Amino acid sequence: MNKKKALILFAHGARDPRWAQPFQKLQQLAQAQLPDAMVALSFLELMEPRLPETVSQLVESGCEQITIVPVFLGQGGHVLRDLPLLIDELRVAYPTLNIAVSQAVGESPDVLNAMVAYCVASLEY
Amino acid sequence: MNKKKALILFAHGARDPRWAQPFQKLQQLAQAQLPDAMVALSFLELMEPRLPETVSQLVESGCEQITIVPVFLGQGGHVLRDLPLLIDELRVAYPTLNIAVSQAVGESPDVLNAMVAYCVASLEY
Repeated sequence: MNKKKALILFAHGARDPRWAQPFQKLQQLAQAQLPDAMVALSFLELMEPRLPETVSQLVESGCEQITIVPVFLGQGGHVLRDLPLLIDELRVAYPTLNIAVSQAVGESPDVLNAMVAYCVASLEY
Repeated sequence: MNKKKALILFAHGARDPRWAQPFQKLQQLAQAQLPDAMVALSFLELMEPRLPETVSQLVESGCEQITIVPVFLGQGGHVLRDLPLLIDELRVAYPTLNIAVSQAVGESPDVLNAMVAYCVASLEY
C-alpha cells in the first residue's frame, strides 16, 4: 500500500551506532500508532539516511504530505538554520509536495515534564 | 544554607544561546521540586559553565554528593566516552565526593512515551 502521508523524525546523528537506539524505538512506537502513515527516521549528519534521501524515497513511493519533527532537545543552529535550508531545497525539488515542520520535541511541555520527573527521581536520597 | 546534595543536568551545549532554553526550564522546574538540593546546569562544550567548574563550585559551597543526569536523547560518544573521562578526573580531584551518574534522559520510558505522543500529534491529518 502506498501511504500518502509521512512523518519524518529528524535527528542529529552520531558516530556511535548506539546513539540511535532511542530514536529507532521512537520510530517504531510512532509507526505503531500511525498505521496509515509512513514513519521514517532521518539524520542531519554522521548517520544514514539523510533528509534529502528519505524525502526522495517517500515521494517515489507516492507520498504527498510530509511532516518533519526535529527530535532535538534544544533549538539551535541545526534546527533554526540547517533544517530550514534543507526544507527550502526540498520545496524547490518537490514543488507539489506538502511539507510541514513542527517544533523540536524539547519544546513540548509534556516531554519537558517527563524529563523533570526523570531528573528529580535520579537524585539519590 | 549549604546544601549537601546536588543534581547536575549535563547537556551538550551549542553556539546559539536559544538552544539552552529547554535546559534552563528543566533546571528551574527540577529545582522547584528539590528544595533541599542544588540543581545546576552544566555543559560539555560551547556553553558555560563546564562540568569541572560546576563541580568545583558545588564542592566549595559544601556539597558532598552529586548526581549527574546526562540530558541527552542518544547515548553516543559524549555520554559513553567523554563524560566517564570527566568523571574519572573529578573523582581524582575530589576523592571524598560521592558522584553518581544516571542514564541519559532519552533512556527513560516516560520521556520516550512523551516524545512518541508529541510526534504522533504532530502529523497533520
